[in-house]
Amino acid sequence: MRINNGVESMEKIVKKDQEYIKQSNKSMVLNIIKIDGPISRADIGKITGMSPTSVSRIAASLIEQGLVKETELYSNGVGRKAILLDIDMESVMTIGVYLNKNITMIGIVNFGGEVLFYEKTKLDTKNEPELVIKKLCDKIENLLTKSGVDINRIVGVGVGLPGIIDAHNGVVVFSAQLGWKNVNVIKEIEKNLGLKAVVDNDVKLKALGESLYGSAKNSKSTALISIGSGVGSALIINGEIFRGETNIAGEIGHITLDPNGMFCDCGRRGCLQTFIVEDRLLLEANNIRPTETVKEIIVAADNSEDWAINILDRVATYICIAINNTVCMYNPDSIILAGKLIEENPGIIPFIEKKNNASTWEPLRGNYKIVYSQLEQKTDIIGGATLASKTFLDL
Amino acid sequence: MRINNGVESMEKIVKKDQEYIKQSNKSMVLNIIKIDGPISRADIGKITGMSPTSVSRIAASLIEQGLVKETELYSNGVGRKAILLDIDMESVMTIGVYLNKNITMIGIVNFGGEVLFYEKTKLDTKNEPELVIKKLCDKIENLLTKSGVDINRIVGVGVGLPGIIDAHNGVVVFSAQLGWKNVNVIKEIEKNLGLKAVVDNDVKLKALGESLYGSAKNSKSTALISIGSGVGSALIINGEIFRGETNIAGEIGHITLDPNGMFCDCGRRGCLQTFIVEDRLLLEANNIRPTETVKEIIVAADNSEDWAINILDRVATYICIAINNTVCMYNPDSIILAGKLIEENPGIIPFIEKKNNASTWEPLRGNYKIVYSQLEQKTDIIGGATLASKTFLDL
Repeated sequence: MRINNGVESMEKIVKKDQEYIKQSNKSMVLNIIKIDGPISRADIGKITGMSPTSVSRIAASLIEQGLVKETELYSNGVGRKAILLDIDMESVMTIGVYLNKNITMIGIVNFGGEVLFYEKTKLDTKNEPELVIKKLCDKIENLLTKSGVDINRIVGVGVGLPGIIDAHNGVVVFSAQLGWKNVNVIKEIEKNLGLKAVVDNDVKLKALGESLYGSAKNSKSTALISIGSGVGSALIINGEIFRGETNIAGEIGHITLDPNGMFCDCGRRGCLQTFIVEDRLLLEANNIRPTETVKEIIVAADNSEDWAINILDRVATYICIAINNTVCMYNPDSIILAGKLIEENPGIIPFIEKKNNASTWEPLRGNYKIVYSQLEQKTDIIGGATLASKTFLDL
Repeated sequence: MRINNGVESMEKIVKKDQEYIKQSNKSMVLNIIKIDGPISRADIGKITGMSPTSVSRIAASLIEQGLVKETELYSNGVGRKAILLDIDMESVMTIGVYLNKNITMIGIVNFGGEVLFYEKTKLDTKNEPELVIKKLCDKIENLLTKSGVDINRIVGVGVGLPGIIDAHNGVVVFSAQLGWKNVNVIKEIEKNLGLKAVVDNDVKLKALGESLYGSAKNSKSTALISIGSGVGSALIINGEIFRGETNIAGEIGHITLDPNGMFCDCGRRGCLQTFIVEDRLLLEANNIRPTETVKEIIVAADNSEDWAINILDRVATYICIAINNTVCMYNPDSIILAGKLIEENPGIIPFIEKKNNASTWEPLRGNYKIVYSQLEQKTDIIGGATLASKTFLDL
């Protein structure tokens, strides 16, 4: 049963175990305080079976981090008064950032996921990545100054952007939209601001934000499908991002539907996204008349123009396929439909809802609900801010 | 921060926490013994920060369950001798069962996933489900008698079968192949054998077995794709089955590829499985000449008959689509190809491997390996037995 006997490697395993157990004990204590607080150290000891020394050590560390505070002397009517432990929500803050080629959003967010200060701007992403990040950091400093929030209260920065992200190392492996390749975002932010940072795929962070604080906050597992200039999805289970081995899980835009289908920008044919991206709708509409926005198609459909109804009917068919395929693979209790196509064109929604039941595999019908973003664009920054607090609160 | 204040509901939360923490502490101690054993109670206390009382209580419970044994007095050369704790692998056993309309397999399996005794038989599944399960239990009793294993050493029974399973309640919600609907398998087994039981979808258990003891035992996350009379998949992450909310996750056979495609037995069109099930291959082959088995198509392809090569080429295209779509959604580090079509017709494999790289979305190429079942049919029972020990060892 022993997987090794060498003293050196055995020590490593013990150390790793000790570290792991320390962290999970700490996280367990914080959770008990969140649910049952205010609560005494003694009661935490009773619940967990930990020794008084261990409970006191963990409590001290949580207090030092500012996550937990001591209450006034408290009496329950019997026995002597005690000092209890409770969560301190306003003491730690993080910064959430969303960045794409058209828009940059920055927010200062508290431990409860509330955006306290917010700014929407635009960075010229045609510049070198290092310069773009430098300018982003300037904007963050400006927002801190304007808001009067002391930078020392900021635990970290969470950045979301479209692309393939090595979240573990903080590197944008590839972002077609920004034209970035192997850009170490967290190193640049640390250099410019002196703050720790995390970076992740925008769809994953949007799903995290909606799942914890928005349209799916009562879901145990929710999958967000984002449809815009590209198509992606992300699964959140019990408040955690489902990443897969290399943080690529959820790339539903590139599941293949038709090996002889339309050419995709990935170099293959018939990817799901070729059926539903905005450009495909516009390409089709322009066969009838010059069309610049999806909105024009919706207006034409409202005016009972058959060609426009035809286009929306077809895109709804493939959005329902995206939904069916997601629920078959992930079996979540909710689906969040999001992204520019949906958010800016609610006129598409009735087309989707009319078809969706029949296009879902029968055992999954009624098994999930469809919801729409409640946090609007702020979801993106709340997701980033939440990931930063999860990462840097040392839990 | 407090989510409730009512005394009654608060007690419930505390109780749930206590139970949860008790279980996870126990599981943690077992894990430390597995990795570092033989180890003293005192050292476990040092590593975990738990009080001597807590460690002793957990150790006593693990010893009582037969999972852990005490060693002889042991000296490390300094200080006084101590009694250490170590894993006792042979003391607990479970029974794994695989059942479909053509075959029934039963095995007695130890804590390390080894099949100690094994029998392959066939039950007439046209009978009432209760009678089928009764006869299954007779077969299990026979195997126990023949093997000389005392039924009191059996912790539980794990049954795998094709269908939609409510694993939580032990109910086969629907199995098209067996013609079962809402059959409470665990109740029947308990009634007949007096043993606790679990039941789950066969593809999920096959994936669990291969992941822990077979072709993917070094994978952190592996997805098994099974192709036979139907198509399914299952994802295993760190030794745990990914179930989704209602244990339906992984139903890749019913992701839609073509809304105008061939009619599927689910009543919709163009499901992935309509492109790759054995019946589809035979349907196509019979347009050329009477064909009863896929093997005949492979032989014809070996003889360079174009029509047969054409059929295999096309099925390989769609199997590669199944692989691409699985890695896009799950991003595992390995894919296990399994099921009757693959296992009985290895001649298909070169067709798949020739195409697979180009049909995978570029960022995922080289990101996963493809493996094939190593445990053969025994995988199915090992998976069931493993789930039974995970479930009933009270960890």
